[in-house]
Amino acid sequence: MSERLNKPIIFSGMRPTGKLQLGNLFGALDKWIELQDSYHCFFCVVDWHALTTAYEEPGEIRSNIKEMVLDWLSCGIDPEKAVIFRQSDVKQHAELHLLLSMLTPLSWLERCPTYKEQLQQIQTRNLATYGFLGYPMLMAADILLYKAEAVPVGEDQIPHIELTREVARRFNFLYNVKLFPEPQTILNRYKIVPGLDGRKMSKSYNNTIDIATPPGELMDKVRMMVTDPGRIRKDDPGNPEVCTVYSFHNIFSSEILAELEEECRQGKQGCVDCKKRLAKSMAAFLEPIYERRLKLEKYTSLIEDILAAGREKAESVAEVTMAEAREAMGL
Amino acid sequence: MSERLNKPIIFSGMRPTGKLQLGNLFGALDKWIELQDSYHCFFCVVDWHALTTAYEEPGEIRSNIKEMVLDWLSCGIDPEKAVIFRQSDVKQHAELHLLLSMLTPLSWLERCPTYKEQLQQIQTRNLATYGFLGYPMLMAADILLYKAEAVPVGEDQIPHIELTREVARRFNFLYNVKLFPEPQTILNRYKIVPGLDGRKMSKSYNNTIDIATPPGELMDKVRMMVTDPGRIRKDDPGNPEVCTVYSFHNIFSSEILAELEEECRQGKQGCVDCKKRLAKSMAAFLEPIYERRLKLEKYTSLIEDILAAGREKAESVAEVTMAEAREAMGL
Repeated sequence: MSERLNKPIIFSGMRPTGKLQLGNLFGALDKWIELQDSYHCFFCVVDWHALTTAYEEPGEIRSNIKEMVLDWLSCGIDPEKAVIFRQSDVKQHAELHLLLSMLTPLSWLERCPTYKEQLQQIQTRNLATYGFLGYPMLMAADILLYKAEAVPVGEDQIPHIELTREVARRFNFLYNVKLFPEPQTILNRYKIVPGLDGRKMSKSYNNTIDIATPPGELMDKVRMMVTDPGRIRKDDPGNPEVCTVYSFHNIFSSEILAELEEECRQGKQGCVDCKKRLAKSMAAFLEPIYERRLKLEKYTSLIEDILAAGREKAESVAEVTMAEAREAMGL
Repeated sequence: MSERLNKPIIFSGMRPTGKLQLGNLFGALDKWIELQDSYHCFFCVVDWHALTTAYEEPGEIRSNIKEMVLDWLSCGIDPEKAVIFRQSDVKQHAELHLLLSMLTPLSWLERCPTYKEQLQQIQTRNLATYGFLGYPMLMAADILLYKAEAVPVGEDQIPHIELTREVARRFNFLYNVKLFPEPQTILNRYKIVPGLDGRKMSKSYNNTIDIATPPGELMDKVRMMVTDPGRIRKDDPGNPEVCTVYSFHNIFSSEILAELEEECRQGKQGCVDCKKRLAKSMAAFLEPIYERRLKLEKYTSLIEDILAAGREKAESVAEVTMAEAREAMGL
């Protein structure tokens, strides 16, 4: 624990969307796995955040949490290294959210670029709610509760970290304390992961590959990938730049990438063979993850046990911060 | 306890402003005292509400709470009959506030008449905050957490009870449950209590009389009261309708009111004598309260003990409601 306390603190959260796909792995999870060795990490299942957009049909939040945390563990998130917990288990998130609401100007939230964008883009749900407006402030509460010094996020989340810094400054200024550090942004190393059809990988496009795809089904997925449409016959020269299979080789077959590119451009290897090699590379990477998941799934109470242990660790840190925050505000 | 459960539930809150004055007693507290016999009452020190407007200078919230609850007890609020507790002690208020935020349309809060009025009227504080916009929803959470069937409030608070009913309906509808009853309004029996100068009694006018005024100082207060300005000499006929002293006789000397009025109109009794009689009537009413307060003040941990016991009772009820609310929302 004393060793832990000397490490800088990291907070990051993920909404419980169920089984994760390769976009989540290379967009966020691999960064978390890297960070957990050098930082004191809090990795949070932000189920309250899920409600800001899904409150009308919350669906299977509980089973989504289980599937997601199974993926975290299978990929290498280690509960011995990082605190893994569920937001709604640690009520201090709600309490700090309420206290910060007192001093957060409405205009800071109304001007948040993600707020305006999502209000316009998401037409099928009624998002003109108090909670949706406040969700970047809930994120600020999540981060500040652990006095996190850095937060790994995607580029679209940068404005929320800026808001968090402003809220921290305003609290410290109003109550003349040095309670909250201003967290820095760590950008996720986002390898562009296309979907099977070449567009961005996304559940709403139905073009995803789950992290936990059974190895035997990988070839079926790869077979569906679009290749260079200009390449008709096996010995036509191909253009890897417009080929989805090549994008995946870029992630999974980096050691033979130059060779693959040359064979494609010279028409030496057909798409079918190239796809077989991709399926093999992907299986080499994903099969150990899949095998680990199969083992973990057998322990029925595993996820609840890990979340319960994480809750205890997170709560004890959160309660220290809250005691200081209440004191600062005169409560 | 089983007897309690058969009684309808009442919730009401008061912001911790310190020592209460006669306006609070006849505007709210006397209704609470009446209700505590026939209802299962939750009387809450709403310290988080105080922060919605006083966050920039929260001041002495803790000592304000102590002084206010001492006044409650001195006037007759009975911790054996009612649950007396502090809002910030029961974290479920913050949690339900967060859950309700997900489904409360922004427009319901923006259109709240008290919101617009106070934004315009209070110029010395920055109230354009997320928390100030949300405070009627925090009030809804306070009330719904105990499934209160009725709420005693002043007329200005009626829109907040309407909002509470709308939020309850929306929750029940969205999650297909019958969790929250729609609370009714019980109007406080508001005897108009003028201040010493004839305007409304208010701390900001510096024209108040504390409930806990030492009996020996009551005559000093009464001496400052404005009387009919048209009455110059002792035997001039007076007009009780424009006399502040008469308004107070109306509250404290009802059994001799007709007699007093006649003597005034006929110039039979001068203002000095009339004031002496008022001071006597007020002392007869307020002295027992004052004496009780002196006794209670001696027990230094009394208020904290009462609030701790109240916290336990309130928490156990609140936690049952929260378990149902979480379940309904799929958490």
